[in-house]
Amino acid sequence: MKVSQLLGERFKERAFEIESQNLMTRGGYMKLVGNGIYSLFTPTKRIQNKIEQILREEMDAIDGQEVLFPVVMPASIWQQSGRWESIGKELLRFKDRSGADMVLGMTHEEAAVHMAMNVAGTYQKYPFMIYQIQTKFRDEPRARGGLIRVREFTMKDAYSFHTSQEDLEAYYERAYRAYERIYARVGVPEVVAVKSDSGMMGGKVSHEFMLLCDIGEDSIVTCPECGYRANMEAAETLVSNVQTGDLKPIEEVFTGDAKTIEDVCSFLKSDAKQSCKAVVYQRNADDSYVLIFTRGDLEINETKLTNYLKAEVHPAVEVDQANLSAGNIGPVRLETTATVLFDRSIRDAENLVCGANRPEYHFTGFTPARDLPSDTEYIDLSKTQDGFECPNCHKHSLKVSRGIEVGNIFQLGKRYSEAMGMTYDDPNGNRLNPIMGCYGIGVGRLIASVCEVRHDDYGPIWPITIAPWQVELCALRVDNPAVREAADRLYRELTDAGIEVLYDDRPVSAGVLFSDADLLGAPIRVVVSPKTLSRGCFELSARDKSFREDIDPQFAVSSVFAKIAEMTTAINAKVPERL
Amino acid sequence: MKVSQLLGERFKERAFEIESQNLMTRGGYMKLVGNGIYSLFTPTKRIQNKIEQILREEMDAIDGQEVLFPVVMPASIWQQSGRWESIGKELLRFKDRSGADMVLGMTHEEAAVHMAMNVAGTYQKYPFMIYQIQTKFRDEPRARGGLIRVREFTMKDAYSFHTSQEDLEAYYERAYRAYERIYARVGVPEVVAVKSDSGMMGGKVSHEFMLLCDIGEDSIVTCPECGYRANMEAAETLVSNVQTGDLKPIEEVFTGDAKTIEDVCSFLKSDAKQSCKAVVYQRNADDSYVLIFTRGDLEINETKLTNYLKAEVHPAVEVDQANLSAGNIGPVRLETTATVLFDRSIRDAENLVCGANRPEYHFTGFTPARDLPSDTEYIDLSKTQDGFECPNCHKHSLKVSRGIEVGNIFQLGKRYSEAMGMTYDDPNGNRLNPIMGCYGIGVGRLIASVCEVRHDDYGPIWPITIAPWQVELCALRVDNPAVREAADRLYRELTDAGIEVLYDDRPVSAGVLFSDADLLGAPIRVVVSPKTLSRGCFELSARDKSFREDIDPQFAVSSVFAKIAEMTTAINAKVPERL
Repeated sequence: MKVSQLLGERFKERAFEIESQNLMTRGGYMKLVGNGIYSLFTPTKRIQNKIEQILREEMDAIDGQEVLFPVVMPASIWQQSGRWESIGKELLRFKDRSGADMVLGMTHEEAAVHMAMNVAGTYQKYPFMIYQIQTKFRDEPRARGGLIRVREFTMKDAYSFHTSQEDLEAYYERAYRAYERIYARVGVPEVVAVKSDSGMMGGKVSHEFMLLCDIGEDSIVTCPECGYRANMEAAETLVSNVQTGDLKPIEEVFTGDAKTIEDVCSFLKSDAKQSCKAVVYQRNADDSYVLIFTRGDLEINETKLTNYLKAEVHPAVEVDQANLSAGNIGPVRLETTATVLFDRSIRDAENLVCGANRPEYHFTGFTPARDLPSDTEYIDLSKTQDGFECPNCHKHSLKVSRGIEVGNIFQLGKRYSEAMGMTYDDPNGNRLNPIMGCYGIGVGRLIASVCEVRHDDYGPIWPITIAPWQVELCALRVDNPAVREAADRLYRELTDAGIEVLYDDRPVSAGVLFSDADLLGAPIRVVVSPKTLSRGCFELSARDKSFREDIDPQFAVSSVFAKIAEMTTAINAKVPERL
Repeated sequence: MKVSQLLGERFKERAFEIESQNLMTRGGYMKLVGNGIYSLFTPTKRIQNKIEQILREEMDAIDGQEVLFPVVMPASIWQQSGRWESIGKELLRFKDRSGADMVLGMTHEEAAVHMAMNVAGTYQKYPFMIYQIQTKFRDEPRARGGLIRVREFTMKDAYSFHTSQEDLEAYYERAYRAYERIYARVGVPEVVAVKSDSGMMGGKVSHEFMLLCDIGEDSIVTCPECGYRANMEAAETLVSNVQTGDLKPIEEVFTGDAKTIEDVCSFLKSDAKQSCKAVVYQRNADDSYVLIFTRGDLEINETKLTNYLKAEVHPAVEVDQANLSAGNIGPVRLETTATVLFDRSIRDAENLVCGANRPEYHFTGFTPARDLPSDTEYIDLSKTQDGFECPNCHKHSLKVSRGIEVGNIFQLGKRYSEAMGMTYDDPNGNRLNPIMGCYGIGVGRLIASVCEVRHDDYGPIWPITIAPWQVELCALRVDNPAVREAADRLYRELTDAGIEVLYDDRPVSAGVLFSDADLLGAPIRVVVSPKTLSRGCFELSARDKSFREDIDPQFAVSSVFAKIAEMTTAINAKVPERL
C-alpha cells in the first residue's frame, strides 16, 4: 500500500496529554465520532486484525470454539441473571420498535449461558469453552485516553463450563498461561497478572492482567521481596501502630474551626497516624448512611466497602441528616442512625485524636481496645500504601504502582448457571448447575496500551508481530529516475515476497516523509535515495534505532526477511510454553 | 476438532418450512436469542470467517482500505445527512446515559463521510475506497427465514469517493467484477446482477446481486432472449392492448354486488385485461389519498409509486373519506380530493370496463384516449409479468423469478457529501463535493442463501471454499481397537497436514453418525470402519455424492489433498478475472 493512498492525516501538533492518544491521533489511527466512540483508520484495523488472529490461535489451542453472540440482546436473559436490576447505567437499555426491552451487550455471560443451555445437558459434554471476538458497548460516564477507555470496543470474551471446581481450576491455569502467551506474542511480555476483586462479575478467584505505566487507572500492589501481586481492591492492608502501653485518658479538647484531619493534627501538633478519622458514605439504593472510622493517614477502598456491605455506595454529600457533626465525628459518645464500621487499622492503636461529636471539640487519648465495646468488629476497608507490610512475606516491602488493565480472567462459579437455570445430568442422574469461568481481553485498549509502552517522542514503535506493516519503504527524491526505478522495483519485490510494505513515494521533503514514517511505526525501514544509490546501496534501519546499515540492493529482500525473522524470534523467545 | 466436543445439537425433526432455516437449525448452526437475533455456533462462525477472508481479499484487490466504523453513532451525523428524519423505525434510535440521541448503524454512509471528511481535502487523494466488516442492526418488522432476514447481522460495506462521474463508473465496474468473483469463490457463481431501484440510498445507477430460488423475497425480471435483467422495481412495464379501432360508446351498466375486478369481469363475462381498476393508497406522512387507475390484470408496484410521489405510501385502509365509492371507483365522472394517477397500461386501451362512481354500477366502453382529457399523464406504476415485452429487445420474452438479494452496489452521487458538507479542492482551486459509490454484502444472509441452493434432503452441502471443515472423518465402531487406532492416526496426519478435519469418534450408531455428518455438510468424508479395514482401505466420498471410492490408508492424506484441490479448482474455474 502507498502512503499517498492511505486515508488519514498525520500532523505535528501535540493533541492530548496521554501519549498513546496523542500519537495515535497525530498518526491518523482513529477519529472521534462521539463521546467514547471512534472510527478506526486502516493502520489500527490492521493491528486489530493481527491481534485478533493471535487471540484466535491461543483460544483454539485451549480447546476454544469460536462463536458469535449478538450485540443487541433482549432484556429477558439479563432479567434471568438478575443483572437487569443490579447493573447501573453502564448497561445501555432501550426499547425496539415493538416496545420490547433490549440491551447493548457490555459482556456476554448471559448470552453464553443462553447458547449452551439445552445443548449441554449431560456431563459427557463437559468441559467446553466458547469464545467470540465482537463489538461491545458500555455506557461509560468517563471515557478517556483515546482507546484506553471508550464506550464502544472490540473484545475477545471466552466462557468455560465445568462439572467440578477442580476442572475449572485446571482450565483456569491453562487460560492464565494462554493470556501470558498472548501478551508476549503481542510484544508486551511485561504484563503481569494480579489477584483482583471480581466485583459485579460475581465470582471468587480472579486475576487482572496489568501493563504497568504511569497513565494507568488502576493501582497495583506488588512485593519485590516475594513476588506478591494484587490490585488495590484485593490487597489486604496490614498496618503497624506504635505500641507504648502508656495509655492516656480520653480527654475533650478545643479544636475550633479545625475540621479536616490535617487541620486537627496540625492544630494539636500530632501525627495523622495518631488520629482516627471518620469517613461517611451513602448507599446508592436508599441514600442511607455508612460511617467508617479509620486511621487518619489511610484512605477507604470503596470496593472493599461495597463487598462488605454487599451494596453500592457513594461518598456522602452532606451528613446532617444522619445526626452527625461534620468535621467532628468520633466513635465515642456517638448517636447516629448510620451503619458504623471500624477499619482494622485502628484496632491496636493507642492514644488517638478523634472527633468529639460536637462542634469545635475533639478527643485525645482515644484507645479503641479500651474505649470501644469488646465485641467491636474490625474490618479491612482501607487502601494499602508504599512500604506497608506484605500479606504474603510480611516484610515492609509493598510497592504501589499504576497499571492499565489489559485483560482479566474470573472463576465465576455457578452464579449464572444457577440464576438462569442451566443444568446437566451427572453420571448418577443428579441434575446440577455447571461451574463457569470467563476470560476477557479488550482489543482496542490493548493496542493503545502497547503504544503507551512502545513509543518514542516521534511515534509508536509497533512490535513486528502486530505492526500494521512490517516495513516502510521511503523513497527520497522520487523525481530522480534512478530512485523511482529502484524503489518501485523494491516495492514489487518485497510485496511479491509476501512482506507487508507501506511505500512512501510522495514528492515531499525528507523531513515530512520520516516524521510520517515515525508516526506510522513500521518496525523496519528501507530508505532509497540519491545518496544511498550513490553508495550503491539501500539503507535498512529499525524504528527502535537498534540497527541502521547499508544493504546490497541485490539482496534487499533477503536482508529484510532476515530482520523480520530476527525481530519475530526475539518476541517468540519470551512466549512461555502452552499448558 | 471432535464432534463430541462441538457445542450444538443436531436433530431430525423438521423445524421450519424454509429449507436453509430448517437445516441450519437442525444442524446446530444457530440459536434464536430474540426476534431476528441469533447466536451463531462454531460451524457458522467458521463459514463466516472464511467468507470474511474472501471479502477482504477482493476488497483489498480493488484498492480498498479496511477500517472500522462504530455500531453506535451519535444522531448528529444522521441529522446532517437528513436520514434521521427520512428513515422510519428500521433505524433504531435511543438515548445514552447523558440523554444524547444515538442510533444503531443499519448502514454507514454517514460514518464513511465523517471519517473521510477533513482528511481528503485535495483532489490528489482521490479516488479511494474504505470498507469494514462489522455488525449492523436494522429493526426489521418482519424478520424471517433464519439468517435470511434478521435484525442483527454482519455486513461488509464499502464506500468509494471520486472526483468525476467517469471515475466512479470505472470503479463501479471493478466493484461489480469483484462481486462476481466473491460469489463465484463462495461457490455460487450463478448469482446474477440485476438493475435495481436504489430506494432510500438516494443514488441513480445501482445493481442488486440475486441468487435465484423459490424462497426469495424479491422478484427479478429477466429476458432469456437478450440477457436483460432488472428487479421488479426497476423493470419497465410494457403492455400490449388489443387495438380494434371499433370504439363502443361509454355506457353505465348494473353490476350489483360485484366489487372486485374478478367479480365484475365474471359478471360481465369480460376479460380482466379489458378492464380498468382503481387502487387506493395513502401517504404515510398525512394519510392523504392517492388513487391509481391501472389495467385490471396488473398490480401496482409500490416502489415505482413511491419514487414518483417522492413519498412513502401504504394501501388505503378505507376510502370513504376521499369521497370514493369503494368497489365502484372509475376515472369518469369522478369527484375526489385524492391525487389521481393513471398507469401507462391503459393509455392505448379500448372499450374497458371501469367503475361508475356509484354503488352497483360500472361503465363499459371506457376508452382513455377518448374519455380522458388529452393532457392526461400516463405513468409506469405497475409490475411487469411473465411473457411481457422486454424493454431491451422488445420480444415478448420476459420471465419473472424469485431471488434472494445477496449484495448490492450503488452509485450514490453527491447525496451524502453535499448534505454533510464534505468537500475537496480541484486542481483549479474550486471547492467541490466528491461523488460516492457504496457496495454491501450481508454475510449471514449469504451463508443461508448458499445453504438454500446447496443442500439435499439430509443437510447442507458446503462448497469447499467456505465449508466449516473440509473433511469429516467418521470412525464406525470405535470400540474396535483397529478402527480406533487407524482413525486416531489419520486424524493426526490430516490435521498435521493443515487439513481442517472434523472427527466423529463417538460410540454411536452409523445412522446417527452419518446423519450428523450430513447436517454438518463437510464436502469430503472419510469413513474408517471394520468393513473398510477388512478390505484394507478407508472409504473416501463426497457429500454431494459425486464420488465414493476406496483409498489406500498409506496414501490417505494425499488422496484427500487431491480431492480438496479438485473441488477448489472446479470452483476457481468459474471465478472471472479481476478488472
